[in-house]
Amino acid sequence: MTPTSPPDTLQVVFTPSGKRGQIARGKSVLAAAQQLGVDLDTVCGGRGICDRCQIDHSVGEFAKFNIHSKPDHLSPPSASEQEFFPAGTAATRRLGCQAKLLGDAVIDIPPESQAHRQVVRKRLDVHNITLNPAVRLHYVEVPQPNMHDPSGDLQRLRDALEFDWGLTDIAFDFHLLGALQSTLRQGDWKATVAIHAERRAIAIWPGIKNKVYGVAVDVGSTTIAAHLCDLTSGEAVSSAGRMNPQIRFGEDLMSRVSYVMMNPGGDADMTRAVREALHGLVADLATSANIDINDVLDLTLVGNPVMHHLLLGINPIELGGAPFALATDQALDLAARDLELGLSPGARAYVLPCIAGHVGADAAAATLSEAPYERDELTLLVDVGTNAEIVLGNNKRMLAASSPTGPAFEGAQISGGQRAAPGAIERVRIDRETLEPKYQVIGCELWSDEAGFAEAIASTGVTGICGSGIIEVIAELFLAGVIKADGVIDGALAARSERVQPDAKTWRYVLHGDGDQGARAVKIAITQNDVRAIQLAKAALYAGARLLMDKLNVDAVDRIRLAGAFGAHIDVKYAMVLGMIPDCKLAHVTSAGNAAGTGATIALLDTAARREIEDVVRRIQKVETAVEPKFQDHFVDALAIPHKTAAYDNLKLEIDLPSPSRPNLDAAAGGKRRRRRRA
Amino acid sequence: MTPTSPPDTLQVVFTPSGKRGQIARGKSVLAAAQQLGVDLDTVCGGRGICDRCQIDHSVGEFAKFNIHSKPDHLSPPSASEQEFFPAGTAATRRLGCQAKLLGDAVIDIPPESQAHRQVVRKRLDVHNITLNPAVRLHYVEVPQPNMHDPSGDLQRLRDALEFDWGLTDIAFDFHLLGALQSTLRQGDWKATVAIHAERRAIAIWPGIKNKVYGVAVDVGSTTIAAHLCDLTSGEAVSSAGRMNPQIRFGEDLMSRVSYVMMNPGGDADMTRAVREALHGLVADLATSANIDINDVLDLTLVGNPVMHHLLLGINPIELGGAPFALATDQALDLAARDLELGLSPGARAYVLPCIAGHVGADAAAATLSEAPYERDELTLLVDVGTNAEIVLGNNKRMLAASSPTGPAFEGAQISGGQRAAPGAIERVRIDRETLEPKYQVIGCELWSDEAGFAEAIASTGVTGICGSGIIEVIAELFLAGVIKADGVIDGALAARSERVQPDAKTWRYVLHGDGDQGARAVKIAITQNDVRAIQLAKAALYAGARLLMDKLNVDAVDRIRLAGAFGAHIDVKYAMVLGMIPDCKLAHVTSAGNAAGTGATIALLDTAARREIEDVVRRIQKVETAVEPKFQDHFVDALAIPHKTAAYDNLKLEIDLPSPSRPNLDAAAGGKRRRRRRA
Repeated sequence: MTPTSPPDTLQVVFTPSGKRGQIARGKSVLAAAQQLGVDLDTVCGGRGICDRCQIDHSVGEFAKFNIHSKPDHLSPPSASEQEFFPAGTAATRRLGCQAKLLGDAVIDIPPESQAHRQVVRKRLDVHNITLNPAVRLHYVEVPQPNMHDPSGDLQRLRDALEFDWGLTDIAFDFHLLGALQSTLRQGDWKATVAIHAERRAIAIWPGIKNKVYGVAVDVGSTTIAAHLCDLTSGEAVSSAGRMNPQIRFGEDLMSRVSYVMMNPGGDADMTRAVREALHGLVADLATSANIDINDVLDLTLVGNPVMHHLLLGINPIELGGAPFALATDQALDLAARDLELGLSPGARAYVLPCIAGHVGADAAAATLSEAPYERDELTLLVDVGTNAEIVLGNNKRMLAASSPTGPAFEGAQISGGQRAAPGAIERVRIDRETLEPKYQVIGCELWSDEAGFAEAIASTGVTGICGSGIIEVIAELFLAGVIKADGVIDGALAARSERVQPDAKTWRYVLHGDGDQGARAVKIAITQNDVRAIQLAKAALYAGARLLMDKLNVDAVDRIRLAGAFGAHIDVKYAMVLGMIPDCKLAHVTSAGNAAGTGATIALLDTAARREIEDVVRRIQKVETAVEPKFQDHFVDALAIPHKTAAYDNLKLEIDLPSPSRPNLDAAAGGKRRRRRRA
Repeated sequence: MTPTSPPDTLQVVFTPSGKRGQIARGKSVLAAAQQLGVDLDTVCGGRGICDRCQIDHSVGEFAKFNIHSKPDHLSPPSASEQEFFPAGTAATRRLGCQAKLLGDAVIDIPPESQAHRQVVRKRLDVHNITLNPAVRLHYVEVPQPNMHDPSGDLQRLRDALEFDWGLTDIAFDFHLLGALQSTLRQGDWKATVAIHAERRAIAIWPGIKNKVYGVAVDVGSTTIAAHLCDLTSGEAVSSAGRMNPQIRFGEDLMSRVSYVMMNPGGDADMTRAVREALHGLVADLATSANIDINDVLDLTLVGNPVMHHLLLGINPIELGGAPFALATDQALDLAARDLELGLSPGARAYVLPCIAGHVGADAAAATLSEAPYERDELTLLVDVGTNAEIVLGNNKRMLAASSPTGPAFEGAQISGGQRAAPGAIERVRIDRETLEPKYQVIGCELWSDEAGFAEAIASTGVTGICGSGIIEVIAELFLAGVIKADGVIDGALAARSERVQPDAKTWRYVLHGDGDQGARAVKIAITQNDVRAIQLAKAALYAGARLLMDKLNVDAVDRIRLAGAFGAHIDVKYAMVLGMIPDCKLAHVTSAGNAAGTGATIALLDTAARREIEDVVRRIQKVETAVEPKFQDHFVDALAIPHKTAAYDNLKLEIDLPSPSRPNLDAAAGGKRRRRRRA
């Protein structure tokens, strides 16, 4: 059956790639794979001292390959294989560099042995990640110095990297020079070198080294989130988060910029604070994963422009006023020591590009994660913070803008507002008849009208209302008729409920009183100012998205992805009731989760993704809402509640909505009628 | 006479290059020079705000060019020219960027206006230096940010560098990012950028900046010498020297290596010490030249291998024993901040390559300065320190070795020896009859037997004998018959002079007693051990040179250049009497001065010289004396005084020498006979 091979030549087929070819008898499976261009990993370069080139010998008659792959077609297990594989390992599992080909064979490369293996992503199936990290390990055996042919230790190490790995013109980080001689001698002239981007040696260890790590970091205004990944397997090892310690300088972005304006040198304090926090996070991750922090050799960093600048040690005041000039919008490939992060002196840091003055590297990372530029369908990607960063597009064209929502969606500038934290009201329902509310608080599963609620929240109490809670309470107040379409709280309802109370010349709705239902001692109320703040914010968000849609000449989008914590927590129905977002099928409005963090992780594991997002960001058309006259028009149009959209029409099928069939103010009036009918 | 030009086109000739061509009427002289490939400097890129493009308008009828160059063939002086050129400046002196061509013209480029001007070297005319520094200044005007076309300030600066200067893919040092926005605004969007190696932006200033500086440093075991140069003119601004503070850890190289062996971590102390001294030197130079230390943006560094390693923060213990492995022998292009020198964060440092384990970057620099590889004649270049670094060759072949002379030539391991410093005996004459000595002391012009000597040296006294003094006293003692050809001090002469005294089982010669001629209270004597030390040192030096000559199959060299302080101070006649150096015409044995410092300066001013010496060092054949059996043979042969050489034959015509006509010991006997005849 087997085709006749030339003497001393055999047939080998590799699965799953299906690559096949004639191989000289006695060659190792690793060498055969390299000859045929089959992706088989190795750190030690075939010396049997790392276990990265594991293969499975597929034994049997393989008619489709016309190969009879017999057990004795590979050499018997070597001593080093017997060491690596404990009793109980399948007999077909071998080290590719040790198993010599003695007959025709079918060899399977298990996924974990591929140097460019695919990394399974949990959240999205938008595009697969091929493991292609910036930092790779290379084991070398370096010739010893001798007096007959004198040359520096570094030169002989370079020669070994070139001879064994084809790595030429490698620059050596200066700090390695001091450690080089002792490391080579300590390892008896064997060493493992970490090479960054196939260009730069950044770390060296005596002997064999199998693992290096990277951390993807999303520096948010409120929270810094970090994800530790094994760069040799692509595995996500652990994640951790910390409050951004800059909060003590200002709750939101603009207050931090103001802090710098009022306190010269304050930027340096904030830079130091965020860097210390970042060091602490990486140290925490290393400790919890039980690894040496010096094995963390690559970072990817994303953040909004102000966070980006402060992390880089750039004074952010230019971002505080027009024309909102970034110091740089391009991706940065840095030594982590330039950021004084206290990591290994060789560690690298990659900062994703910013899109524009108010559309940061976090938006770029979210764009990378969501990859709307790969699809036909039109995706609107929204990340709500102090500004809303908005990206709209598909595989034909991409646009981005930021809308000046202000921090109301984050709970700031709202009378009872607060950050999303235990104790904050995040869900609200208001009875359409009695106008009595019930709510849920972060950290507790019970509704406020359920038995045991008071006990369950005893440790935190009810401390305020967070972004998603504000959206819901204002939408519910609208649905209950307490807020009219123009946003005015209807004081006439004070006759129906003690919760509607006069407040200077306006009215307020008391959401949470001091314990009793009568709520005489007000703790959390929705004031007329609060409604106005949300109206301004949601109109800005809508107008920004609408402006980009104008550029594409569309009235609806195929998909809306809401990124970040706000996007994860708001109920999209209520967002649509308020008219925050443009027309889209409700089922296609979903949370993108921590898209920025996911994008940072993708960039960490796959350097090709770095080039990809750099290229995409260059091609994104940047739209500055402040200089677009139509933005103002859309903004004014979008102030009323609800804003008339086709989506709103659809929504009424799903939830109890006022009729949207007439213009805005009429729609609100319709809502009143409906309530009256029920009453 | 003038050839017919097309309408609106004129004839222009540039001198001294003779380049000529047709230029559009109205074009500036600078633009015309750029069009014709004429080397005319500019920092501001033709905006009339630097004065680097000065030209002379040659007025008159130039028959040889067939051009009548009339005064009104250039536009009248612009306002900025009137500002730059004070009253009294020749009317023909113009700014090339301001003077517009209105008729045929002959334009002379004065030397100081050439971007690649030749730098006149004071010491040597071996090869000219073309000014071609690594750091160049580029003035740019950067477009302001605007909201319609948002881009980072850095991107617009890059674009300006590319548009105005053709500089693409410039990497920006990270530290510039923090200063970028304020600098651009401070300079009203005009800035000058320092670019290193046409690849890297290392500094930025608001507005126009005309000058940057570099420092060439020779880190000697004893002295650190530094030379401040203007990188924009090539001018040597000032020089300064400091003791190497590492002397407190050990007088000579090997004692410093021993210090590290006995004191783990001692290398870090020595590294810190030399870096602090280097910072101090550069600061001194900047202060004395009245310039900002931050304007020093390039360093070149040379030193022997141990100094080289300690400066770089590399433990030198591998250099203390076979196989004398260098951490690296290659040239290094570093950020000066990696060396923690406390200079501008953008400053660069270039470390010349080492030749071999005992032949350092100082020898490479001396080789660059002397450039024996450019000549037909065979040059022996010798730098005497703890080891003698020896380079031999010509334009066909180059060899290098080090000879283990030990530190005797530096005055170490000599009973009365000391460093060359005020108070040290540096010249000696011994009366052939009375055996009475006279000597000169560093810091005093008088001989010890001249009137006023005692008063002249009162401040220092006579403190010891330095290297050149030792050479002379031993040669003179040999010439006076006190030392025999085999190096033994002839005790029989005690009968003739009280200066010859018993010393344990051997004899000594008292060079300097306590004030009186009788010298009863001995202060400085030449002991038998001292003679042995010098015999070993001179035999090693000779044997090393001889070994390299063997490789070239020659018995004499055309030229001997003695580098360094020792070479500058010894009297080459005495070196030849002792047989330190091989056959060469006495007139062709000369001091190379501070060749290492000169080489460092060349590398500072001309980056092409860096590539040149890197290439030469790669091609130098390294000879390790320790593994060459013939070295031992030559060494043993060379122990006697004088060693018989053809040069010695020549010498007898010039100074009072014993007959060299018979083998060594006979020659010495002949010397004795001669003395007897005189006596």
